[in-house]
Amino acid sequence: MSESLFDGKRRNQVWQKKYHVAVVGATGAVGTQMIELLEEVSSFEIGEVSFLSSARSAGQKKTFRGEEIEIKEAKPESFEGVDIALFSAGGSVSKELAKEAVERGAIVIDNTSAFRMDPTVPLVVPEVNEHALKGHNGIIANPNCSTIQMVAALEPIRKEFGLSRIIVSTYQAVSGSGVSAIKELNEQSQAILNGEEFKPKILPVKGDKKHYQIAFNALPQIDVFTENDYTYEEMKMINETRKIMEDDSIKVAATCVRIPVVTGHSESVYIEVEQEGISADAIKNSLKNAPGVILEDDPANQVYPQAATAVHKKEVFVGRIRSDLDDPKGFHMWIVSDNLLKGAAWNSIQIAESLVKLEII
Amino acid sequence: MSESLFDGKRRNQVWQKKYHVAVVGATGAVGTQMIELLEEVSSFEIGEVSFLSSARSAGQKKTFRGEEIEIKEAKPESFEGVDIALFSAGGSVSKELAKEAVERGAIVIDNTSAFRMDPTVPLVVPEVNEHALKGHNGIIANPNCSTIQMVAALEPIRKEFGLSRIIVSTYQAVSGSGVSAIKELNEQSQAILNGEEFKPKILPVKGDKKHYQIAFNALPQIDVFTENDYTYEEMKMINETRKIMEDDSIKVAATCVRIPVVTGHSESVYIEVEQEGISADAIKNSLKNAPGVILEDDPANQVYPQAATAVHKKEVFVGRIRSDLDDPKGFHMWIVSDNLLKGAAWNSIQIAESLVKLEII
Repeated sequence: MSESLFDGKRRNQVWQKKYHVAVVGATGAVGTQMIELLEEVSSFEIGEVSFLSSARSAGQKKTFRGEEIEIKEAKPESFEGVDIALFSAGGSVSKELAKEAVERGAIVIDNTSAFRMDPTVPLVVPEVNEHALKGHNGIIANPNCSTIQMVAALEPIRKEFGLSRIIVSTYQAVSGSGVSAIKELNEQSQAILNGEEFKPKILPVKGDKKHYQIAFNALPQIDVFTENDYTYEEMKMINETRKIMEDDSIKVAATCVRIPVVTGHSESVYIEVEQEGISADAIKNSLKNAPGVILEDDPANQVYPQAATAVHKKEVFVGRIRSDLDDPKGFHMWIVSDNLLKGAAWNSIQIAESLVKLEII
Repeated sequence: MSESLFDGKRRNQVWQKKYHVAVVGATGAVGTQMIELLEEVSSFEIGEVSFLSSARSAGQKKTFRGEEIEIKEAKPESFEGVDIALFSAGGSVSKELAKEAVERGAIVIDNTSAFRMDPTVPLVVPEVNEHALKGHNGIIANPNCSTIQMVAALEPIRKEFGLSRIIVSTYQAVSGSGVSAIKELNEQSQAILNGEEFKPKILPVKGDKKHYQIAFNALPQIDVFTENDYTYEEMKMINETRKIMEDDSIKVAATCVRIPVVTGHSESVYIEVEQEGISADAIKNSLKNAPGVILEDDPANQVYPQAATAVHKKEVFVGRIRSDLDDPKGFHMWIVSDNLLKGAAWNSIQIAESLVKLEII
């Protein structure tokens, strides 16, 4: 690829490194967003890109900074010369190929659940625990979408007032389940509006025993169930939050629910802070200048975050902040973000930017 | 109306009373359900019905047990001879006409928020506090839809183990906002599927300053905001729950959210019981034979309540019951019911049945 194709900000240094970035899962809902975001990256120079996929999708083409790039089948040797490999093609692909990429010298930023709870793998939301990147062993895990937006919004509060408890109920969009789930929601919605029959095939969980209507419905199952009757999605929120915040003493509970929204996860979050005598205004103030967070909280003017207005934006939106009426340390709030951006692709790109900034790569 | 039209169960008593029942708001989403349910009532005899509405809807006709009934404009004199008046035409109509009906000898069962927190008015969910009917002064209030299904599901737990705390996040259907909101959801959904422009006019709250997209979105506002930054809907859930359970010491918190579902409210509910050492199985057992409650809780087989399967049913469905992982007295669950039936029309009819059964009327 010729240099002239890139509009990245040039540092005036002849030794400026140019990075070879691979995207694994380039045709998926998240991979597509990763590619769009990489086009706009200006904090480091991209010298080459490799877009990788399953054998089935290989051969398709994606435009990148004006150039057509052919998508190739992801194989161990695909990672020769790659500096940063962004994985978002499902846990099994990551388990098979992430170590191959690392062996070939790449740092892997993995958007699947494959390595998140591995104690040797940093699980990073840059606004919360960027420092954890320094301890990496080749693989860095991108947290679950519903976890990322919650911890990004709660970290400023935790830092200022301490945080002892989180109870979250989610309102999650179908794009978290991929392109086929988006198609299912749209087709089912149309069938119901037409009064036609339809057969659920994807949601709540691709490949699970039963499938249910998602259009005009709410499904209290995301990912499969674990032995304790929580879903994996709920356990991800619980375990990942403690790992990212580096505090196993925080009580975390989650109920994860899929609703008929294409993109944009919403969360109803109850928290208890450690400090006494904190007001809702103090909580709001702690978020006003927080990195990556936008306060949208003006009930008198009906201003609060919404999935429909958060979509295509990189920030986490927080509103409906109010004191619990019984517990003086309790607060309620509503946290919304684009699950494909901050919840997935954007957080992965941010990790890449942090790796460069911290001179880890 | 001739007797032969009625298929009600006859008691073998010559003095069997026949009741004159009025429905105020007969053309609305709830009024329509009330009329359908009255057709099936067999626990008391209906001798006459009056279907009442605003001047605008008067003149329309409804079929009742095979006979065409003309809808008449609701006026004070409409209640002459009425025994039971079911009101569901908005708070202002109830405030104007409920006392007129009582003065003419009717017992009013009011489905609006007009009198719910009036200390002289019983607020009744028959499965929970039927006894409160005995203290009535002519008006009985039907609680808010989101409150009814929650207290019906929690009362068996409260009775057996005590209940100290409730934190609820709701997933509420648009039919709670009436026929025009259903139309708005359907039309907006179609516009979005077609890629067409649309202009929100009804939701989140008819007559409020701003209106937002509900199709493929989630709106954390139901009813207008109060001074403490909670919505009225949230304050209804908090205050009504304590009144119905007759326990002001229960901590209750609510976040009420409208989602793109036509009918069927879902609730993610966290509770703390008073007794120690209670298992999730014990909670499930307390619900197995509870009146009006159906346990749908088998995660291994993906069995849990859903709005789409609860619609057109009178019961409250409970599932996803599991222990909190940190608090030994804490439990999470998912409560779903048809907001137009148990949440409104059916609870009102049940109150009428209780009034007859307890010989109050």
